[in-house]
Amino acid sequence: MPRIVTAYSNPLVKRVQALRDKRHRREEGMFIAEGLRILTEARETGRLPQVLFYAQASAHHPLVLALVRDVEAAGGEAIETTEAILAKLSGKDNPQSVVGAFATFDTDLTALDRNASPIWLVAERLRDPGNLGTILRTGDAVGAGGLILIGDCVDPFSTEAVRASMGALFTVPLVRASWSAFLPWLRAGPGQLVGLSLRTQSHYRTASYAAPTFLLTGNEAQGLPAELEAECDLLVKMPMLGKADSLNAAVATAVMAYEVLAHHAPAGSE
Amino acid sequence: MPRIVTAYSNPLVKRVQALRDKRHRREEGMFIAEGLRILTEARETGRLPQVLFYAQASAHHPLVLALVRDVEAAGGEAIETTEAILAKLSGKDNPQSVVGAFATFDTDLTALDRNASPIWLVAERLRDPGNLGTILRTGDAVGAGGLILIGDCVDPFSTEAVRASMGALFTVPLVRASWSAFLPWLRAGPGQLVGLSLRTQSHYRTASYAAPTFLLTGNEAQGLPAELEAECDLLVKMPMLGKADSLNAAVATAVMAYEVLAHHAPAGSE
Repeated sequence: MPRIVTAYSNPLVKRVQALRDKRHRREEGMFIAEGLRILTEARETGRLPQVLFYAQASAHHPLVLALVRDVEAAGGEAIETTEAILAKLSGKDNPQSVVGAFATFDTDLTALDRNASPIWLVAERLRDPGNLGTILRTGDAVGAGGLILIGDCVDPFSTEAVRASMGALFTVPLVRASWSAFLPWLRAGPGQLVGLSLRTQSHYRTASYAAPTFLLTGNEAQGLPAELEAECDLLVKMPMLGKADSLNAAVATAVMAYEVLAHHAPAGSE
Repeated sequence: MPRIVTAYSNPLVKRVQALRDKRHRREEGMFIAEGLRILTEARETGRLPQVLFYAQASAHHPLVLALVRDVEAAGGEAIETTEAILAKLSGKDNPQSVVGAFATFDTDLTALDRNASPIWLVAERLRDPGNLGTILRTGDAVGAGGLILIGDCVDPFSTEAVRASMGALFTVPLVRASWSAFLPWLRAGPGQLVGLSLRTQSHYRTASYAAPTFLLTGNEAQGLPAELEAECDLLVKMPMLGKADSLNAAVATAVMAYEVLAHHAPAGSE
């Protein structure tokens, strides 16, 4: 039976709320995801929150009932609560009807099947959680095999990254690896490493992409370091017709990912 | 001669800091932009801050000196200050070396020359300031004629939107209009209105785009209302191979904008 909690001072409320902080996420190995749609998507991929908070007003929604049932069957805790507590947990004035605390997860590089998809996303020293979540969301849309985070990236389990991923955190395999682990793994099989650069004459529309293509995105402020560019099999440039010399990192990744998708699966073939 | 201000209680510090709030921006008709690169870009397009704050440490930087000179020549005020006050003004722990308070601006719909560019961006009820700024940044990159904001969009002069635009707020003409003003203007001349939709069989890669193309982006959560879709000359769909049925609004706009750019100016022609 679900418990009913209405007090801010409840230890579980305090503990889940603390997961909005990176240090607590690391210590607990848990993170927050919100929203009925996203939690249902998580459930469909086999991931259930260890603690589920849901609004009294949505207690009879069939998807909430299904979540409560599955969470309790898996030994987790389902807690009916107030909108005020949901707002406190999510840090938003208009909170979603459900908030879940999940165990963090990761895929190991060696567990990836590079032939599972013609497109893979690789991001290096990404600093913005919104960009990271948005890249995951794009990865879902283009059917990417996964997102490989290289070096010191922002925490993919930060509340903002999870929110921006719109559920893709649960559907797109996520790997964290060092460059020195990634590169030998990549070179141990087929795989074209493609970087976006200003220092090339290859136009991104006319370049030749070979599956599996690994699209490498660099840090928002600094782009790709020269030593990473040097390891790329292909550097391409995009038209930059204005004053600026770069795009938002998530935008550049998406334009490239859709370009590669069009090469691997032309319009009409899907 | 620049003044030196080191007290939080200085009225000008308080007044500029208040511009981070929408109500104060509207009342004062002013907004904040930060960063030497962005303020220099603004200067090059002829826009100078009415009040310029700069760090003591960067007082001898040639671009800061140029800004101070031009701001004072235009009757504005240049103020040398501490890093702590710059942090307070920008709301960031590691502030930029310059923060400026500019007068807000707008272009009137009737002042646009639709033949000035083959691509125009139109966004309806956009809610996220990061998305708005990112769309401006993409608009700069694809050489868009401007961004036309329809209906109740987030404030393009919010600090987050200005930051995400990376200076494009100053280089891409910005228009705010109602749908009922925009549509007759559009129909009074050449212009293909293109919307992204799930309710079409036209693949975005093989569709025919006619310049000037007006790319219409809908609200983040709801997409385009049916009555706006009905006014489009062309609806296109993009492959969505995963679980989700939509992309981030700024991402979708960028993929479409680069697609239209490739049709109007194929690789090798620029």
